[in-house]
Amino acid sequence: MKFLSNRGQTMPPSPIRKLVPYADQAKERGVRVYHLNIGQPDIHTPNSFMDPIKNLQMDVLAYGPSAGLTSLRKKLAEYYNRFNIDVSYEDILVTTGGSEAIIFAMMAICDPGDEIIIPEPFYTNYNGFAVEAGVKIVPITSDIEDDFQLPPIESIAEKITDRTRGILICNPNNPTGYVYSKEELETLREIVLKNDLFLLSDEVYREFVYDGQTHTSIMHLEGLEDRTIMLDSVSKRYSACGARIGMIVSRNRQVIDACLRFGMARLCPPTIEQIGTEAGIDTPQEYFDRVIREYNDRRNVMVEMLRQMPGVVAPMPKGAFYLIVRLPVEDADKFAQWLLTDFNINKETVMLAPANGFYSTPGLGRDEVRIAYVLNVEAIKKAMNILAEGLKKYPGRTI
Amino acid sequence: MKFLSNRGQTMPPSPIRKLVPYADQAKERGVRVYHLNIGQPDIHTPNSFMDPIKNLQMDVLAYGPSAGLTSLRKKLAEYYNRFNIDVSYEDILVTTGGSEAIIFAMMAICDPGDEIIIPEPFYTNYNGFAVEAGVKIVPITSDIEDDFQLPPIESIAEKITDRTRGILICNPNNPTGYVYSKEELETLREIVLKNDLFLLSDEVYREFVYDGQTHTSIMHLEGLEDRTIMLDSVSKRYSACGARIGMIVSRNRQVIDACLRFGMARLCPPTIEQIGTEAGIDTPQEYFDRVIREYNDRRNVMVEMLRQMPGVVAPMPKGAFYLIVRLPVEDADKFAQWLLTDFNINKETVMLAPANGFYSTPGLGRDEVRIAYVLNVEAIKKAMNILAEGLKKYPGRTI
Repeated sequence: MKFLSNRGQTMPPSPIRKLVPYADQAKERGVRVYHLNIGQPDIHTPNSFMDPIKNLQMDVLAYGPSAGLTSLRKKLAEYYNRFNIDVSYEDILVTTGGSEAIIFAMMAICDPGDEIIIPEPFYTNYNGFAVEAGVKIVPITSDIEDDFQLPPIESIAEKITDRTRGILICNPNNPTGYVYSKEELETLREIVLKNDLFLLSDEVYREFVYDGQTHTSIMHLEGLEDRTIMLDSVSKRYSACGARIGMIVSRNRQVIDACLRFGMARLCPPTIEQIGTEAGIDTPQEYFDRVIREYNDRRNVMVEMLRQMPGVVAPMPKGAFYLIVRLPVEDADKFAQWLLTDFNINKETVMLAPANGFYSTPGLGRDEVRIAYVLNVEAIKKAMNILAEGLKKYPGRTI
Repeated sequence: MKFLSNRGQTMPPSPIRKLVPYADQAKERGVRVYHLNIGQPDIHTPNSFMDPIKNLQMDVLAYGPSAGLTSLRKKLAEYYNRFNIDVSYEDILVTTGGSEAIIFAMMAICDPGDEIIIPEPFYTNYNGFAVEAGVKIVPITSDIEDDFQLPPIESIAEKITDRTRGILICNPNNPTGYVYSKEELETLREIVLKNDLFLLSDEVYREFVYDGQTHTSIMHLEGLEDRTIMLDSVSKRYSACGARIGMIVSRNRQVIDACLRFGMARLCPPTIEQIGTEAGIDTPQEYFDRVIREYNDRRNVMVEMLRQMPGVVAPMPKGAFYLIVRLPVEDADKFAQWLLTDFNINKETVMLAPANGFYSTPGLGRDEVRIAYVLNVEAIKKAMNILAEGLKKYPGRTI
């Protein structure tokens, strides 16, 4: 009997999580593991989010509306308006995490076999969603030497076929930390209009930009009102990754209606976390100021220490809390595993995410890793020292 | 521009929810609507479930494991063991609602174009999941005149093609209330073994069986250990529909591994509701005894009153809290809408789910509705009186 579908067999394992068994084994041997592999911040979830959950007065934990609680959607419209994103609550659907937002958007605009262009490296789970939706991801390669900026317009244009349905960016970018400029977004606007495409943008790191930059949303682009689909999530914003609350935002009512039909099939997103999210939107600005300052410090310490390691290439990320780093090793996958299985300093080691899983083009990113600066400055200093020593000792090093 | 995919356009609207706008309009006119259209019980969620959520001590609402919290999976294994379902926690994945359990199982065993046989009428959202997964549902028709028992083995066998991957039942059944006997399950066992198929069973109403019957799970069937996939949810068990916590249970490790890969892409199910679920499993048996007694009373009152209405056919449901009823009308869809738009008694009316959306074969179920007995006995009496009067007054009645 052929037990599994091809889809079940070819689904790529997540590079963020596939080394977890080795980390677990290390922990069993008494080794402390600094987790820089996953975007799970150590930042406390604000009380504004958690308090209404603790104070819940609810006889029946009932289904909510498929589109999300109406009061939450109205509050979200207010939140977006603060960023000059002109939407009403009817342009917003609440989803079960940003993950579901991306799957619904892919399914609404793509039939199986249709294509979406994505700059690589990209958030690795896009691959999984594409397998589920039967969508073909067509990568355009951005380069570590150029800080992962948007590739030139010609290299995007040449990827467009009659199956292309849209271009998806992540801005600020996971995994590169790059923040697309207004000019780069204008370039995308031009391509999208010329070729009759959708422009999708995963903007879950909106707040996380450094060095006094401002973030431009695709929802700010003029003349694209019916072609833009913004994907969002509260996971990082309120350090509430376990809440599984995301959003689809689009002024194209047909897109919203199609996504809502998928939403009706799964009935509704989790009710309790929607209540937390609604209150979380009133989190005082000081919380974010403090959090952004903290990430900024972590970023500076990490990049400075990385750049002191011989053979390491570390572009300065402009946003989010990740960076892609080139290491002087042949196979970063093996190195990341080795750090967990064969290396420690005083019973401490570090877990990284091999970057090859963030590329779609085979062979790319083999000497790169994604590092998330989600630990405090002291922990980052320790982790970077461990990494520096590991690179010196690793038998597979190239310098 | 072709805005939507065919998938986005052909996704069927949910018959449970599509009349909601008419209900909302009725409410705006000051009409009270008795909601018998949706399986949203009025039963209180037990304190055992809600208390740990209110007492949450958690600094960071973090991602959990993709397979679900390990402590919850272990507790679930204990729960299943109580029903003589011999599984360990490694045979269990926690999903975001029973909905996700069904989608993951479909995707794990089916490639686009593959087929799953389902007795109709069936839970209408299976249609939506099938569209999402690109799976073709092949119905075998069960008959209201036979109380919706399993159709004869020949009518199942003749539906099997080289694309058939499995047979999916819902037991106890939503929407018919039928409970499959051990003998019927043995019949399915035979077909599955002979034709190299999976047997999937949605058993979310396990506790809800009446008249002293016992429920047989597909997990009790011998010789099918690697071919059975049980889908489950806490929504009805603990009246926690808004929690969105479900399960996939299978002793086929390949199936679990494939589903886990889909699970990794979406990272994890909601954390807070998993905590509630884990504690909910210790809900005292008295809670269920009381709840089952209550549903039993509701069922008896409802069926008795329905059977007094001229031209109404109402089989006695053996489990769950639904029944499919034949009404003396030509088009139950129009009748259900008329009840909301053109009828009320003393500013009260009733909302039903037209049953045609629960059938896959076009034209079937046109004179049937699904009724959920999720309101208390007094409300059910009032709702049944309203229905009886409505049937007398409805211009489209056939007797």
